[in-house]
Amino acid sequence: MEKNTENRTLTELASENLIRLIRERNYVPGDKLPTEAELSEILGVGRNTVREALRILVSRNIVVIRQGSGTFVSKKQGVSDDPFGFSLAADREKLTRDLMQVRVMLEPPIAALAAQNARKEDVKKLEELLEEVEGRIRKRQDYAEADIRFHEQIANCSHNSVMSNLVPVIGKGIAIFAREVGTTEYEQTLISHRAIFRAIQEGKAVEAQQAMQFHLLYNENRYLEERAALGRLG
Amino acid sequence: MEKNTENRTLTELASENLIRLIRERNYVPGDKLPTEAELSEILGVGRNTVREALRILVSRNIVVIRQGSGTFVSKKQGVSDDPFGFSLAADREKLTRDLMQVRVMLEPPIAALAAQNARKEDVKKLEELLEEVEGRIRKRQDYAEADIRFHEQIANCSHNSVMSNLVPVIGKGIAIFAREVGTTEYEQTLISHRAIFRAIQEGKAVEAQQAMQFHLLYNENRYLEERAALGRLG
Repeated sequence: MEKNTENRTLTELASENLIRLIRERNYVPGDKLPTEAELSEILGVGRNTVREALRILVSRNIVVIRQGSGTFVSKKQGVSDDPFGFSLAADREKLTRDLMQVRVMLEPPIAALAAQNARKEDVKKLEELLEEVEGRIRKRQDYAEADIRFHEQIANCSHNSVMSNLVPVIGKGIAIFAREVGTTEYEQTLISHRAIFRAIQEGKAVEAQQAMQFHLLYNENRYLEERAALGRLG
Repeated sequence: MEKNTENRTLTELASENLIRLIRERNYVPGDKLPTEAELSEILGVGRNTVREALRILVSRNIVVIRQGSGTFVSKKQGVSDDPFGFSLAADREKLTRDLMQVRVMLEPPIAALAAQNARKEDVKKLEELLEEVEGRIRKRQDYAEADIRFHEQIANCSHNSVMSNLVPVIGKGIAIFAREVGTTEYEQTLISHRAIFRAIQEGKAVEAQQAMQFHLLYNENRYLEERAALGRLG
């Protein structure tokens, strides 16, 4: 047992040193890391420790291991898959409401920032994602994933690195919401997304903020009404 | 190499099944998990796989291993230490500004919710943390950690589970800010914290929101002024 704990500490130390290495060498997503043997030498630890440290970095989405080709810096930039333990939450209904409450606080000011800071190429990508959601809605296909990407791209338009990392996590709220809500809203989503996009494209921060606020409150209200009708709430 | 990848998938699957087990059995923080041998039987995988799966859960703060006594559900409730890869960010100054921007968006509405939803015992704990910060300020001691706990407790007062998990992460913003800013603000922190606390205690949501907004904007402004004076910005 003692040994196990010591190992864990060694591994943790090695994983911190690996992160420092990635930062100091200015590795960017997609870059290849030195081999296990080289890392073992650079960090001054055994290859087993290197392997375990790399596994921790994989679980934190800092690196990916591609069999046969090596270890690479992850494109997810160290954003964990479930950093807030949503998978642990037993009360899915409260989680859905809490996530929606956070989105209503965060996403409207993000949309305002996006309208202020978006570059031409950001807007182009946002338009593509808008059209992807619209295409799926017209065919009455499930659009939850495309919807998440649309909201993520708005966060990217803000050029605030913390937002860009925060929204994909909050984006899980969209997936959980889509599972929890009984009916899918097609027409209002088309109108709201278009309004948000147009305000960002035209650089109108106030309109973008309000369009996002309406979009989220409309959906929150829809969910609460549905619950009330089911007699579970209020 | 192939073997390595297969192992990883087995381990990941086992870690997901472990999370399901924790959720379905309604384990709460502090509860003891079955032994490695028992988990190996329950999950139908080898003990090595159980050990690796547990290590992943440790790195995600879902469980802690105490040598000699076993594996327990972590009190950090699955909230990762650095879920957004802040440790990877090369530009510390931009990170500081981006974090502050997110705090200015999030924390005022959280303070409003706290004023609305705080229970008696929440307010009591908040008062203790307020006094801890005040004590440290009077002795001119470093108060960054106590400050983080004060802001975290405000998030807990909101009774929104997502906020409670989000703010400790954003709380890193306080630590990074404290390292980046040149001078420590004592007097204004005393006044601002007291104003925020009183509004929450009295259940005044609007006052709580505005007091928090002023507190954060005052500090942001202080940082930007300092940078400007250094001639690095604007």
